[in-house]
Amino acid sequence: MASNTEKVSEEVKKISIEDDEDIVNPWDVVSSSDKGVDYSKLIKRFGSSEIDKELIDRMVKLTGKPPHHFLRRGIFFSHRDMHQILDLVEKKKGFYLYTGRGPSSESMHLGHLIPFMFTKWLQDTFDVPLVIQMTDDEKFLWKDLTIEETNKLAHENAKDIIACGFDKDKTFIFSDVEYISESTEFYKMMCKIQKLVTFNQVKGIFGFTDSDSIGKISFPAIQATPSFSSAFPQIFTGKKDVPCLIPCAIDQDPYFRMTRDVAPRLGLLKPALLHSTFFPALQGAHGKMSASDPNSSIFLTDSDEQIKTKINKYAFSGGMPTEEEHKKHGGDCDTDVSYQYLTFFMEDDDKLADIKARYSSGEMLTGELKQELITVLQNLVGEHRKTRADVTDNLVNEYMKSRKLKFDY
Amino acid sequence: MASNTEKVSEEVKKISIEDDEDIVNPWDVVSSSDKGVDYSKLIKRFGSSEIDKELIDRMVKLTGKPPHHFLRRGIFFSHRDMHQILDLVEKKKGFYLYTGRGPSSESMHLGHLIPFMFTKWLQDTFDVPLVIQMTDDEKFLWKDLTIEETNKLAHENAKDIIACGFDKDKTFIFSDVEYISESTEFYKMMCKIQKLVTFNQVKGIFGFTDSDSIGKISFPAIQATPSFSSAFPQIFTGKKDVPCLIPCAIDQDPYFRMTRDVAPRLGLLKPALLHSTFFPALQGAHGKMSASDPNSSIFLTDSDEQIKTKINKYAFSGGMPTEEEHKKHGGDCDTDVSYQYLTFFMEDDDKLADIKARYSSGEMLTGELKQELITVLQNLVGEHRKTRADVTDNLVNEYMKSRKLKFDY
Repeated sequence: MASNTEKVSEEVKKISIEDDEDIVNPWDVVSSSDKGVDYSKLIKRFGSSEIDKELIDRMVKLTGKPPHHFLRRGIFFSHRDMHQILDLVEKKKGFYLYTGRGPSSESMHLGHLIPFMFTKWLQDTFDVPLVIQMTDDEKFLWKDLTIEETNKLAHENAKDIIACGFDKDKTFIFSDVEYISESTEFYKMMCKIQKLVTFNQVKGIFGFTDSDSIGKISFPAIQATPSFSSAFPQIFTGKKDVPCLIPCAIDQDPYFRMTRDVAPRLGLLKPALLHSTFFPALQGAHGKMSASDPNSSIFLTDSDEQIKTKINKYAFSGGMPTEEEHKKHGGDCDTDVSYQYLTFFMEDDDKLADIKARYSSGEMLTGELKQELITVLQNLVGEHRKTRADVTDNLVNEYMKSRKLKFDY
Repeated sequence: MASNTEKVSEEVKKISIEDDEDIVNPWDVVSSSDKGVDYSKLIKRFGSSEIDKELIDRMVKLTGKPPHHFLRRGIFFSHRDMHQILDLVEKKKGFYLYTGRGPSSESMHLGHLIPFMFTKWLQDTFDVPLVIQMTDDEKFLWKDLTIEETNKLAHENAKDIIACGFDKDKTFIFSDVEYISESTEFYKMMCKIQKLVTFNQVKGIFGFTDSDSIGKISFPAIQATPSFSSAFPQIFTGKKDVPCLIPCAIDQDPYFRMTRDVAPRLGLLKPALLHSTFFPALQGAHGKMSASDPNSSIFLTDSDEQIKTKINKYAFSGGMPTEEEHKKHGGDCDTDVSYQYLTFFMEDDDKLADIKARYSSGEMLTGELKQELITVLQNLVGEHRKTRADVTDNLVNEYMKSRKLKFDY
């Protein structure tokens, strides 16, 4: 047994951090560059694959639908085994989507929306079941919150997720605390994973130390579990071989490197992945936004006025210090946070290209660029606010009820 | 947080093993002496208290019932906070009993019966609720068995436990795999404990290493959980302060040292304990019996003939090599396994004293002593066999159904 559990594939070997490298793990994202994390280097270090033109063209060809602008613009930039998922689509075989959220605060920010917006597009494009894990147990273990509080936050955050427009008949949202304590198959799968992963391995992958709680140490198995269809017998009627595709930010990859290492030892399929870049903080692309710093991001609860003030006051500008210099040298779109935000939320490619050209040349000033973003975000957040207001506790309960979805397995 | 989770009370400090000391933990019991583990030393090392005449007299006075022969003969020899439990009894306040079994094999042996026989007596004497944990998840994590197999063994073993005569209206038997996945309160309590215990602590208490699975490392929290009444809202209607008394073999104490360390940090009561000595292997009192060696013990499934053969062939004798020497010097009851077994299963004090006197003096030969034991065990196992035959799968399900017991809280 020892030699078996100790065997670690290439995929999960500790990824060492060199002095000039960015730090990217589920708890820390730190980049030394103004342009943010070097994603090409990250792909090499993590051993994933680039989402290239060939892959995007194949998706378009198979689905007959245009690619999401997150794909066109390299916001989802990296994948594992996406071609195998497309092989299945080609053969008219099913798969399912799995994504999640750690409910540590009541207000979600714009960065939290990215995986859900993309997942919604994937669900619409491929017409597949979706499971969304709310890791209220994780947030209890990591944060200074009671388990009752994180469970409540899971329900609050589910409202924001539902407001993204997920089809109720195709979507199961679950809180760990609730679903683990109602699904024998989920708990069994957790145990199976926990049996195959050693402390050495999670130390290597996640950097845990001897002073970490045994809850933290065993948690990665809980995030791994939804990658296997047998954890949801009510949806897949006990089928163990329904492949899983996980859209997530690249900082969550360590969990799934571990999962992919364990899968073949369980006789199960490795989950495929689609990785996104990070949504930059208002202050610049050094790291992820923080839910605990209200001025580092735009929250889904921010008013139009707050959005305007935050963008004008805090959004890091790539423009020149004076209007004269700006008109002469132009602004730097690579470091300008307002421009970066537009690449996430302005769908119109032509308009975005026009803005880039005019800002880079110095024709467009920082104030104008910020006004473009303010308009886009006031619309986006305003729409979300309206949709969310209609999400009742009852509707949340319907999404979070363990049940068959509209797919027959 | 760090300083808080790192704080380890005196009770859970690593108990160092000196060269001349016995090894006693949930997985190993090794003694260097023919007389077995030195229990007085163990009490000092573990920091528990001796079950002395005063405590037994108090129990008798409060309950009006004679003490069980396990108490009279020092088989249950050590305790933690039993006087506090008796204080409650004095005030007519309730408590509950918690014991358990790791279902690693289909056949339970005589040693496994000890805590259950005593727990049955405690239940009858104090008229209190009893929860019995079947750690099928633990045995899956530790043994080369599937989780489906250990879950099945939990149900098989439950039959042997029920055959000990527990009152169905006062007893809840549960499999971890089943109950964790149906009780939110149990899972929440598990998480709360897992948040407060570090790897450093379980390394110190249980000797885990970096090569152990994260399942093993986090398991102690699962065995700790039933020590708190809030894990059973269906029995205690959400009351968090119903005190718990745990009768168990002393090798399980590390789990409950950890539990007692965590309890005040959760604002909960420390469980009280009653510890038993080990039931010796047929070959002698060097250690515990092993379910994997069929000749080391008498199984509850053994026939009358098998019992006779095993005792005659394998029971270590404290008698002299020849009849002549034996009659001259007498036998040694301290090392004679047949005599030891009689202290466990012959209730009649006078008869036992008579046997001891006659064997020690050399008047009674080893063959006669063994015959006394064979008769006692054939009766005991025969009775058990008969009672167990009436325990149907349906009856097991009734005991294992999460439900209110006949006590009002």
